[in-house]
Amino acid sequence: MIITLKDDMKPEQYTSLLERIKSKGFEANFDRGKEATVIGVRGDTRKIEENYFMVDGVKSVKRVSKRWKEVSREFKNADTIVDVSGVKLGNGYFNVIAGPCSVESEEQIMDVAEKVKKAGATLLRGGAFKPRSSPYDFQGLGEPALEILAKARDKFNLPIVTEIMEAEHLELFSTYDIDMYQVGARNMQNFNLLKKLGSINKPVLLKRGLSGTIDEWLSCAEYIVANGNPNVVLCERGIRTFETAYRNVLDLNAVAYVKEVSHLPIIVDPSHATGKLSLVPDMSKAAVAAGAHGLLLEVHPDPKNALSDANQQLTPEQFSKLMKDITLLSGILYLQSFD
Amino acid sequence: MIITLKDDMKPEQYTSLLERIKSKGFEANFDRGKEATVIGVRGDTRKIEENYFMVDGVKSVKRVSKRWKEVSREFKNADTIVDVSGVKLGNGYFNVIAGPCSVESEEQIMDVAEKVKKAGATLLRGGAFKPRSSPYDFQGLGEPALEILAKARDKFNLPIVTEIMEAEHLELFSTYDIDMYQVGARNMQNFNLLKKLGSINKPVLLKRGLSGTIDEWLSCAEYIVANGNPNVVLCERGIRTFETAYRNVLDLNAVAYVKEVSHLPIIVDPSHATGKLSLVPDMSKAAVAAGAHGLLLEVHPDPKNALSDANQQLTPEQFSKLMKDITLLSGILYLQSFD
Amino acid sequence: MIITLKDDMKPEQYTSLLERIKSKGFEANFDRGKEATVIGVRGDTRKIEENYFMVDGVKSVKRVSKRWKEVSREFKNADTIVDVSGVKLGNGYFNVIAGPCSVESEEQIMDVAEKVKKAGATLLRGGAFKPRSSPYDFQGLGEPALEILAKARDKFNLPIVTEIMEAEHLELFSTYDIDMYQVGARNMQNFNLLKKLGSINKPVLLKRGLSGTIDEWLSCAEYIVANGNPNVVLCERGIRTFETAYRNVLDLNAVAYVKEVSHLPIIVDPSHATGKLSLVPDMSKAAVAAGAHGLLLEVHPDPKNALSDANQQLTPEQFSKLMKDITLLSGILYLQSFD
Amino acid sequence: MIITLKDDMKPEQYTSLLERIKSKGFEANFDRGKEATVIGVRGDTRKIEENYFMVDGVKSVKRVSKRWKEVSREFKNADTIVDVSGVKLGNGYFNVIAGPCSVESEEQIMDVAEKVKKAGATLLRGGAFKPRSSPYDFQGLGEPALEILAKARDKFNLPIVTEIMEAEHLELFSTYDIDMYQVGARNMQNFNLLKKLGSINKPVLLKRGLSGTIDEWLSCAEYIVANGNPNVVLCERGIRTFETAYRNVLDLNAVAYVKEVSHLPIIVDPSHATGKLSLVPDMSKAAVAAGAHGLLLEVHPDPKNALSDANQQLTPEQFSKLMKDITLLSGILYLQSFD
Repeated sequence: MIITLKDDMKPEQYTSLLERIKSKGFEANFDRGKEATVIGVRGDTRKIEENYFMVDGVKSVKRVSKRWKEVSREFKNADTIVDVSGVKLGNGYFNVIAGPCSVESEEQIMDVAEKVKKAGATLLRGGAFKPRSSPYDFQGLGEPALEILAKARDKFNLPIVTEIMEAEHLELFSTYDIDMYQVGARNMQNFNLLKKLGSINKPVLLKRGLSGTIDEWLSCAEYIVANGNPNVVLCERGIRTFETAYRNVLDLNAVAYVKEVSHLPIIVDPSHATGKLSLVPDMSKAAVAAGAHGLLLEVHPDPKNALSDANQQLTPEQFSKLMKDITLLSGILYLQSFD
Repeated sequence: MIITLKDDMKPEQYTSLLERIKSKGFEANFDRGKEATVIGVRGDTRKIEENYFMVDGVKSVKRVSKRWKEVSREFKNADTIVDVSGVKLGNGYFNVIAGPCSVESEEQIMDVAEKVKKAGATLLRGGAFKPRSSPYDFQGLGEPALEILAKARDKFNLPIVTEIMEAEHLELFSTYDIDMYQVGARNMQNFNLLKKLGSINKPVLLKRGLSGTIDEWLSCAEYIVANGNPNVVLCERGIRTFETAYRNVLDLNAVAYVKEVSHLPIIVDPSHATGKLSLVPDMSKAAVAAGAHGLLLEVHPDPKNALSDANQQLTPEQFSKLMKDITLLSGILYLQSFD
Repeated sequence: MIITLKDDMKPEQYTSLLERIKSKGFEANFDRGKEATVIGVRGDTRKIEENYFMVDGVKSVKRVSKRWKEVSREFKNADTIVDVSGVKLGNGYFNVIAGPCSVESEEQIMDVAEKVKKAGATLLRGGAFKPRSSPYDFQGLGEPALEILAKARDKFNLPIVTEIMEAEHLELFSTYDIDMYQVGARNMQNFNLLKKLGSINKPVLLKRGLSGTIDEWLSCAEYIVANGNPNVVLCERGIRTFETAYRNVLDLNAVAYVKEVSHLPIIVDPSHATGKLSLVPDMSKAAVAAGAHGLLLEVHPDPKNALSDANQQLTPEQFSKLMKDITLLSGILYLQSFD
Repeated sequence: MIITLKDDMKPEQYTSLLERIKSKGFEANFDRGKEATVIGVRGDTRKIEENYFMVDGVKSVKRVSKRWKEVSREFKNADTIVDVSGVKLGNGYFNVIAGPCSVESEEQIMDVAEKVKKAGATLLRGGAFKPRSSPYDFQGLGEPALEILAKARDKFNLPIVTEIMEAEHLELFSTYDIDMYQVGARNMQNFNLLKKLGSINKPVLLKRGLSGTIDEWLSCAEYIVANGNPNVVLCERGIRTFETAYRNVLDLNAVAYVKEVSHLPIIVDPSHATGKLSLVPDMSKAAVAAGAHGLLLEVHPDPKNALSDANQQLTPEQFSKLMKDITLLSGILYLQSFD
């Protein structure tokens, strides 16, 4: 439920309302917006009548009937800023997560980490456990890859992002203190995994499923947030359609729309969305212009010999050029937003 | 690799070939088809040359380059018949799995079990753990539901099918000796779960993902089979398209096509595919006519008050009428197949 | 608007109501259903209040707010039976339209016509003007093909069905007295053509567009019917989805659903929907079982050398076998519908 | 066929080659690219052997096997610049076509034309004949709308773009000297209309169909170009997918991809692609960043009272602000392209 407070609510009325909320076992989520101050009531409020909270100092009480509640703008109007080991993600910040599709060797990661850091990336990515359509494809190095990523993080001071494929790996990820846990497109609706990620205190990067609707995607974010972890960043990575000229269709409508209805940060992955290197720079710029809070870009020192996704990874040189272009673009768009 | 044997191969040649296969750490999968006798070589054969197996008595050696191999007709031409605690599923058999969307109470299950058994169902279904789009929807009774299902199985001698959502539940499922483990559409590409199901000896019912291609679906079946469990039954349950007049589009092309390229049994779930009760009988008949080896039908003693999927469940009376119709249809189609 | 009459309405009340309808320039469409007698008011009734027709003898007046009105069951509950030069299409009748994708020569058509007639087809098809994705593909023989079809019709007493691609061809089609005008999937929303077909008195076979929703498809039928031609037969021919294993996905949900909401006959084209000969027989049976009022099947005397769609056309022998199977099926399903 | 010339080809060799081409009834399309000089041979070359053109001075001859040939980069590498009554569309130019969804009155058009001109639009749009899903929706003013548009063009010196729905209207469009003929999404594969547009000398704006693949879309452009009219501009306007949160999904991958494979200009219509006003500015910027050569934007003096598409049209003030933003963006991106 969303409780909107009167402008002239008195402190004792406020204290009394808070006690009323807590007495039912709910939590109060306070949000001072531009137009009104609002309290989002957290918990299963389905059996409570709206007028139970219509006490002195309260302007209105509204039940949120959507399938997702806490991730909505109605519940919390202010933009969420997610802190990934010191790097801030969300409105007003622009971050690029870069690195190879798969971790292949320490040498590869150290090489890439140094170069993407220099070019301006603020987070390092690399797949340790890879979800592959066929059991005969390369499945990732596993734990050794986590160790390599952690070394690179420590050396270059770049927080690391990598995909978690199953709840059983939570302990392993904790051992290497992974900074941000990525949930892949195929696991978007792995509800068990989502619930468990709701009980840890690490930021989660939640990719949209191949045919995930916005409504389903935000419901999946709700699984994490409602279970206690508010640090969710969404990632649009292309959707499955009838078109076969490129791997997927990058849905940038989703970026503008999600920003309207949710307070969570949203970034874009043009590498997976296109599956074609030649389209990545233009789609990166388009994502920035659409208002994305950041990009996820695949960079490999030697793309042609990559163990996975050879056709879509940038060289460090291409990445460096692209970073210059989008940094300028991002700055101008930010200024325009104040006009 | 697929090794086709000459018709006049001698026993000692055969023994020698088998040793050659085993010496490399591979397994031999023997299949005596109508046109030829074939050995499917199991294991990672990518580093072996084809001619390594071109020994005396061998007619040809062919590498299967697809992403799925053991589930293909090329690897094994004979139809797979899956035995679910005595009930045979596959070509030449026609089975109906029936029961409510969710297990709600012992009374409900006992009531339904008795009625669907009487009407001709051979397996009982019911959801204990439910994958729900929103965290605020009913998530299933959990373990108590497994206990209820097991009681009904024992009383009515109906093997039970229920969905497993995470690898952690394997032990629990084993405790109640669940007869068939269903993998839901949202978990089709939960590769970790698929691998673990490859290491048990219980039949798996693998539903097609909402936007899963046939190629991906069979690759997922391959994850299970290649990890050691050949007892996989596929289930078409509708795909996601642009149409919104009904929940999903039942893709019966898939039934005929999968039977062409794979030896695995395939059944159809018209209840989820339509999401509309009024369409279920006609789509059930269509699925039978398309050649499905069975149906998965939702039956509830009181559909209007069901805790989930209220709009698509048949009453026991509707189910009974439908069973008569499809049993006759199935018989006629079987006879036509011999013309 | 739908005016439901009281059971005891008096003749003079009825006459008075009819005059009231006509005085506003509307037409009255009378439909005596099982449960009630209903008058559908034809014309733009948006500026008339419902109570204008709430006169003596009238039970209720209801505005149909849908985008399609006259094709709906609400407007006319009784099944429409379309007469194609003596062949009845619709509920209670089962017809098969057969013939090659393209008319290639007089010899070819005479050969096929004789054979499909003998096997039980009741209408002959063949493309004269072909809509082809590329300008470099065979575009059809044009007018000579119409002449050939007309000859075959006269010789074998088989009404002919062929595609009309543009309004300019109406006169030409009239010259050869084409019995049924097919509107192809790519022209489903060629509104100009639809309007013109509304003003002729020949039956129209309206194919569903590649990504046409049911709502759009019925709105297209409405364009024809509301312009004066009630003789529309719908044809499901597969929809475009993400799947690439076969050309399109045959949507049989559509058959059962359309029969619920509309009184128009609906048939199925498994040849185009699959694009694969091997899937055609099973999908034909499935379409019959789903309740289709007929099939459109491509039959060619020598499919391998066909000028278009070589991979999906049946030989006359395959067609003959299939006709036996579906005729039996159709009969049994008809009997079951009375249970 | 594509004939690549040697760098040192002699004039007499060139003349001789041209004669060889003409003697077979073909046309030669000369293109001096950066890397090589190329002649595209126009006509049905399927029956000619490649080596027929391997004469002195020729480096190579290549058959273009695609379904589209003349619109490809292989046939003509240089970007096509389309001249719309003095306004240049294509690489190096950035144009905005603006105006209301439908022409509603002379006052409305004059008002909008003045304002969009002042804000920087270079072409004026407005629907005279509207393709509407339902026969009961507003179908456009028809001929009077053409007259109004022509007046506005003359007064404000803004070439006009409007949709042609049928070949029969060609004469009418000619009467009012319409500057650019738009082919709508539903008519993308109206091959008859496309062929006729190939025989006039006015520029054509070809919208992508709702589920039109890039391959089909370019084949449709080929229908126009191969019939003699090279002045085709493509327009991406969103595709149909499973997502229902907005009307369509704007496919910006298509922009970058089409520019790679074709020399035709491509613009973007964010108004139809989103169907939501609030998403239009961000999607406009994204389209510019993706490399579109222009935008098609709906602007209405009073959107809430518009006769069609009320939810997606910008006010003149919103349009003016947006124009400032995208003009700056477009300039910066143009400069970046030279880095």
